[in-house]
Amino acid sequence: MTETVLASPNREVRIGFGRPFVIIGERINPTGRRRLAEEMARGNYSRVETDAIAQVEAGAHMLDVNAGVPLADEPKMLADIVRLVQSITDVPLAIDSSIVAALESGLAAYKGKALVNSVTGEEEVLESVLPLVKRHGAAVVAISNDETGISEDPDVRYLVARKIVERAADHGIPHEDVVVDPLVMPIGAINSAGRQVMHLVRRLREELRVNTTCGASNVSFGLPNRHGINTAFLTMAIGAGMTSAITNPLHAEVIQAVLGADVMMGNDPDCAKWIRKYREPVTAGAQRQRNGRRRRDRSAVA
Amino acid sequence: MTETVLASPNREVRIGFGRPFVIIGERINPTGRRRLAEEMARGNYSRVETDAIAQVEAGAHMLDVNAGVPLADEPKMLADIVRLVQSITDVPLAIDSSIVAALESGLAAYKGKALVNSVTGEEEVLESVLPLVKRHGAAVVAISNDETGISEDPDVRYLVARKIVERAADHGIPHEDVVVDPLVMPIGAINSAGRQVMHLVRRLREELRVNTTCGASNVSFGLPNRHGINTAFLTMAIGAGMTSAITNPLHAEVIQAVLGADVMMGNDPDCAKWIRKYREPVTAGAQRQRNGRRRRDRSAVA
Repeated sequence: MTETVLASPNREVRIGFGRPFVIIGERINPTGRRRLAEEMARGNYSRVETDAIAQVEAGAHMLDVNAGVPLADEPKMLADIVRLVQSITDVPLAIDSSIVAALESGLAAYKGKALVNSVTGEEEVLESVLPLVKRHGAAVVAISNDETGISEDPDVRYLVARKIVERAADHGIPHEDVVVDPLVMPIGAINSAGRQVMHLVRRLREELRVNTTCGASNVSFGLPNRHGINTAFLTMAIGAGMTSAITNPLHAEVIQAVLGADVMMGNDPDCAKWIRKYREPVTAGAQRQRNGRRRRDRSAVA
Repeated sequence: MTETVLASPNREVRIGFGRPFVIIGERINPTGRRRLAEEMARGNYSRVETDAIAQVEAGAHMLDVNAGVPLADEPKMLADIVRLVQSITDVPLAIDSSIVAALESGLAAYKGKALVNSVTGEEEVLESVLPLVKRHGAAVVAISNDETGISEDPDVRYLVARKIVERAADHGIPHEDVVVDPLVMPIGAINSAGRQVMHLVRRLREELRVNTTCGASNVSFGLPNRHGINTAFLTMAIGAGMTSAITNPLHAEVIQAVLGADVMMGNDPDCAKWIRKYREPVTAGAQRQRNGRRRRDRSAVA
């Protein structure tokens, strides 16, 4: 039973086989969000606050935070945002940067056990990120590419993931603290991308015994009705054993796909979460009708 | 490569591994549809006609036809409906009855290679239905229950399916003409029902090498937002290898789930069907805007 435990001072999240799927909210990221990037560059984090609260209310179990604003002091900004988000929500965070100094500064500001996003199989990255992860007692997302880029062969991506897990172990990081991103290709370009990911997720689970995550919207790049493809992907990936995703919980389809998949996997006991989320609200009219029926029942008894 | 070929005089449908999922429209069935049952009992088949056309337009590859109207002359009615539906659509049919005389009469009326729905593992049913299937050169849906009922143990259901496939072979019906229904339990009652079906579909595919089908809405019985559960189920079942379902193509979510799953499985080359179905329609306004842009481009060149 592999479990990756992440924590804030008041809350623990467990990513694991046989557990409900973990949604890591992706919105606090200026990449591709020009207005957010401009505001962050001016030190205005009000949208970060509203995004944090909205994502948790929508069902995110964790939040990814990224401060990759061009020309900004990313280490300082990431630490500021980590502190800000931890002051208004209690979900654990994924600290997201491609700059090691920013990861370091974000980790120093974070209270709890964080998920570092990410390390790759590149030699220099391994040797700079893994000691940091170990020092802070964090877990880490392992992205299965290396110096040669992203292989189109999923079995090569498996070998890169295995190398990262082994190197993490050399640094004293157990396999349950490595969450592998098998890298999802756009299925419009590579028609076998879906089958690849399912194959890879099964191998990662059965052979490496690691949890998995992914950016769940890359798969639909370039296609119409992207939500439709994204939900099909998420559902099938969960069926194959994927245990978390970095995605947008503000889309109702994403939440429905994840909760439905939890039901199908037997990870929502008595379907309690599904029923709570989707049961019909009792309208005033229906309530009156019920009361009326009850009154009639009573008079029939009388 | 297992392929179940069904045919009408003008059209062939292949259910198979590595092929697009086959949707068998379930609507032409008076069970639970009181108005349809009343109309059919009076010999009024207008709703059968509209249901046939609407389902095919919505994306059904085949249609199930059932004439189980209480106290009616089911053999005559089923033959009438088979002829009627074949006169207005060219999709192959599943001839659906629990009465052997009705199956016989429906098969006699049918032109092409039909799917007989269904045979069970019960001795008497096997010995009455299989000779009929063989005589008409049809294929058959095998439901994995027997005299002892429906086992909650999926491996017992597997053994019943295997028995039916073996008995079919004794009658000269090859395994590719047996499409197994693994029987989907309501997941609100049996939380492991989803995992059971996925396990069973994989065994049926890998060990018995048969195609599979199911009634895809039983799984959500008693739960709110049934479509959400049904689509999660369909998507995961297709991911596990299910190749057809008897379901309602008039629900847009069902079609989206099936087409999305075909994309994910690599069974929609270049995502062509997905793109055709979901690309943005070109509105008159957008067209004018494009023409305007083109004119400006031209004048810029000039």
